[in-house]
Amino acid sequence: MIGLFDSGVGGLSVVRALLQMAPESSFVYVGDTARVPYGNKSPDLVRAYAIQGVRTLIAEGATSIVIACNTVSATAISALQATFPETRFYEVITPAVALALALPSARVVGVIGTRTTIATEVYQRTIATRAAELNRQIRVVTAACPLFVPLAEEGWVKRAETRRIARTYLQPIRQAQADALILGCTHYPMLIDAIRASVQRRVTLIDSASAVVRAVQTAEPSLFAPTQRPLQRFLFTDASPRTQEVAQAWLRRPIQITSVNIAET
Amino acid sequence: MIGLFDSGVGGLSVVRALLQMAPESSFVYVGDTARVPYGNKSPDLVRAYAIQGVRTLIAEGATSIVIACNTVSATAISALQATFPETRFYEVITPAVALALALPSARVVGVIGTRTTIATEVYQRTIATRAAELNRQIRVVTAACPLFVPLAEEGWVKRAETRRIARTYLQPIRQAQADALILGCTHYPMLIDAIRASVQRRVTLIDSASAVVRAVQTAEPSLFAPTQRPLQRFLFTDASPRTQEVAQAWLRRPIQITSVNIAET
Repeated sequence: MIGLFDSGVGGLSVVRALLQMAPESSFVYVGDTARVPYGNKSPDLVRAYAIQGVRTLIAEGATSIVIACNTVSATAISALQATFPETRFYEVITPAVALALALPSARVVGVIGTRTTIATEVYQRTIATRAAELNRQIRVVTAACPLFVPLAEEGWVKRAETRRIARTYLQPIRQAQADALILGCTHYPMLIDAIRASVQRRVTLIDSASAVVRAVQTAEPSLFAPTQRPLQRFLFTDASPRTQEVAQAWLRRPIQITSVNIAET
Repeated sequence: MIGLFDSGVGGLSVVRALLQMAPESSFVYVGDTARVPYGNKSPDLVRAYAIQGVRTLIAEGATSIVIACNTVSATAISALQATFPETRFYEVITPAVALALALPSARVVGVIGTRTTIATEVYQRTIATRAAELNRQIRVVTAACPLFVPLAEEGWVKRAETRRIARTYLQPIRQAQADALILGCTHYPMLIDAIRASVQRRVTLIDSASAVVRAVQTAEPSLFAPTQRPLQRFLFTDASPRTQEVAQAWLRRPIQITSVNIAET
């Protein structure tokens, strides 16, 4: 069974992509809404939280785990693999980079993400490695967008204020004449209109949520097999009415959410 | 010794007010930056986190504790007093309300705060009680400003985007012709320029941080006595370089911060 871990509700964009491709699959999702957001927290702390979340997913029966959060993918994937050697992990960075470099005309690739994700420079390293394999010259330009997560969580998706903030954040991407832009945070698909309006029209936007789901499907197609009575569970460390409301708006369908304490596992 | 508890760095506005009045006093501050922000989390969770923070402060030698956070003051003060009956607690709500109602001309009082603080309606209840004691008619108008904390933490203090968001949030306060406005979150003094520009010029702004420090001074003046070698400690659950940087900008002086794990106490 697939397990998905995120700092909060943002990773539900991965669930949405999963449900589009395999509506009858079984999965369990853990969102750490009790400690969200991770994007400004220190890498050691993010690693400790991620290990707790994954331990919970494994206890719930997950065998393959999608880290549905760029901040966790950028900081914790090696620690997770070392802590849980039997489990197969998927992170959201490599698949998005592969998609960007599959564009033959891409010479300048933009990446936006949380402050912590951008500071790790993991996208620069991953793109450099992949570009070397392909024998291509790729320039990378990054921008941290720390207010995007609170704006998305507030549902300020179509507001003029959000468009204005997006224009400010994306100025370096625009200026560098990027050909492709990786949305390096699973929250950002929510703000796609504001992001699109802030870059040149020809820029290809790459959503890390869809990219990782396709990577799982390629590697382990059996996980996508329809199950008779699909088990689709949504666990949150702060399962408040507001979490439910935001999660349902995100997934565009009613769901039942359950409270879970991962800090003590 | 005074202990101060906050969800993060916002409560340092209370420390700033304390240092202005009593620069040689001793205190210990605990900021839960590992789980900040509290303002959108559920009341049960905020109470559990607050009990952990206060337990840490008591272990560090605090005898009187200032809850330097409106969200915690609004949701957890009874639970804290019941859990730690020997400790004297100060919350930030009552002193701010007392200041607002000390304005003889105040008929309409505005209150801004986090979503959780506003939802508790604690300001409405506290103002109603106080107004009844004074035999006055007071109308209360509230507005939740959930993006103010991330904007303050980002240091977006003088930006056009912040002024625009403030204008949107404060529209009901402006429309109600408020005479006084309580800044019901210890982060908000950081955004005072944007807030002031969003309401009529005659509105008196009331800062809950200064109000609570004055309340402590009145009740326990001995806590403000200068000590030979003042012990002024700053403990954070995520003591990252960024926490240090934001804390120093807030206090406008260099400080040493220490890491503390309150989740296991």
